Amino acid sequence: MPLLFERIKDIRNHLGRLRCDEKASIGFVPTMGYLHEGHKALIKNSVLQNDVTVVSIYVNPAQFGPDEDYHRYPRDIDRDTAICEELGVDVLFAPTDREMYPEGFGTYVSVSGITEVLEGEFRPGHFRGVATVVLKLFNIVQPDRAYFGEKDYQQLKVVEKLVKDLNLPVQIVPVETVRDKDGLALSSRNVYLSDKERVSALSIYRAFQHAQRRTSEGERRADVLIREMEELIRSYPLVRKIDYLTITDPDLQPVEEVRDGDRILVALWVGDTRLIDNWRIKL
Amino acid sequence: MPLLFERIKDIRNHLGRLRCDEKASIGFVPTMGYLHEGHKALIKNSVLQNDVTVVSIYVNPAQFGPDEDYHRYPRDIDRDTAICEELGVDVLFAPTDREMYPEGFGTYVSVSGITEVLEGEFRPGHFRGVATVVLKLFNIVQPDRAYFGEKDYQQLKVVEKLVKDLNLPVQIVPVETVRDKDGLALSSRNVYLSDKERVSALSIYRAFQHAQRRTSEGERRADVLIREMEELIRSYPLVRKIDYLTITDPDLQPVEEVRDGDRILVALWVGDTRLIDNWRIKL
Repeated sequence: MPLLFERIKDIRNHLGRLRCDEKASIGFVPTMGYLHEGHKALIKNSVLQNDVTVVSIYVNPAQFGPDEDYHRYPRDIDRDTAICEELGVDVLFAPTDREMYPEGFGTYVSVSGITEVLEGEFRPGHFRGVATVVLKLFNIVQPDRAYFGEKDYQQLKVVEKLVKDLNLPVQIVPVETVRDKDGLALSSRNVYLSDKERVSALSIYRAFQHAQRRTSEGERRADVLIREMEELIRSYPLVRKIDYLTITDPDLQPVEEVRDGDRILVALWVGDTRLIDNWRIKL
Repeated sequence: MPLLFERIKDIRNHLGRLRCDEKASIGFVPTMGYLHEGHKALIKNSVLQNDVTVVSIYVNPAQFGPDEDYHRYPRDIDRDTAICEELGVDVLFAPTDREMYPEGFGTYVSVSGITEVLEGEFRPGHFRGVATVVLKLFNIVQPDRAYFGEKDYQQLKVVEKLVKDLNLPVQIVPVETVRDKDGLALSSRNVYLSDKERVSALSIYRAFQHAQRRTSEGERRADVLIREMEELIRSYPLVRKIDYLTITDPDLQPVEEVRDGDRILVALWVGDTRLIDNWRIKL
């Protein structure tokens, strides 16, 4: 069984001993729980590369907007604990809100330059909440390496910039998106989808495949590819709204001509569920 | 001679070895250089309490407003190095702006709740710059203890809140203000004062002494004490403008009735020089 900590002081004492007395390297996988194969890939990487693996489970209120799904976000700590045990996780950290944001809390980190667009445009304050909780968790766990999925590509970039700009002594390890057999990127939010909605959600992967095929055939104009993907996605009946659908370079700067390594990024609504995904174009 | 580092990578390697291989405790004194007896008191405390003492010398552009004295702020790295050597400092860190704020830098920390008033009101953005550079320096040096003077009392409170809110693994040690024989609080900016201006600058200490005497005699009304101090200060000819003069509790909340441990805080201009100071009321 992984050791479960709820208090900052306690996990810090425990990890401090491991770090200094046993010179253990520490891998860290921050999550909001309700673990799926995507999280498992992060955890497996960490277990392979470090002496000790710490997984945090915390649904961070600071990164949800007032009208978002904070309250209905799925939670299942018992199942998460069993998964962590199975994968060889050493330490679980599941703090309360009171522990993370005690009364009087008021310090926030803002990463400018890449948080204004895409998710940042549609979820104001989201990345401030993400950056702040990630920084807090890093300071509590003090890991050597931390693992983030490419599924939340902009978040990965924000965390990388946070680490670089603030000189945090941690190495960020990106891990590829895990997809279901049908191509749907794994997300804890997929449980919101009905069977019919799930079919429309697959439009995302179909659009990526279409764009990948068209670029392999020689099409390089981003606007053409975007228009074709949009048309394809809109042909699915339960796609309610596309927040954005764009192609950028690896640093989230818009491109006109597509090159190897560029990213397609999309956020859209299927029914009441907002899905995001991205695709690395291989030429 | 203390070892001098200009590169983050180099000081980090050096301190990493000391921290892990020799289990050395690390004390840190962040400064903007041009060291005086106030800095020396910080350094002496650190040398006494830690195996290794690191002093940083960096005039942080991010905490100066566009019309402030960033460019004329006094600098003398040779004299500073000699002082550090004399006091037994082990490591000096004097980074360039390019090293601290490379191109594309854009991550800032904001501490809300206590940065809006006093200095924060008159120096917008100042504490954002302070909090950001302190956080960066902490991440680079990773000290066990860091030393801050009570002279910049609000700054001390901001750093304490930064550490608490972000769960930084460092202990903040406050050190009492050092004053010249005539009562003027030591500050690198005192070099700006002409002899005549210096006489007017002493009005601050006189006002503190007056308020301390009046409270010892039984006067507890903050507004009365403030009015009397203001009158006294304004009787000095070269005092050009008082930015603020107030009495707060130790957490910078305004008070009506003065109690033991409350603070008098003042910022004022003598000629073109802005001076700040504060006084702990002892009852």
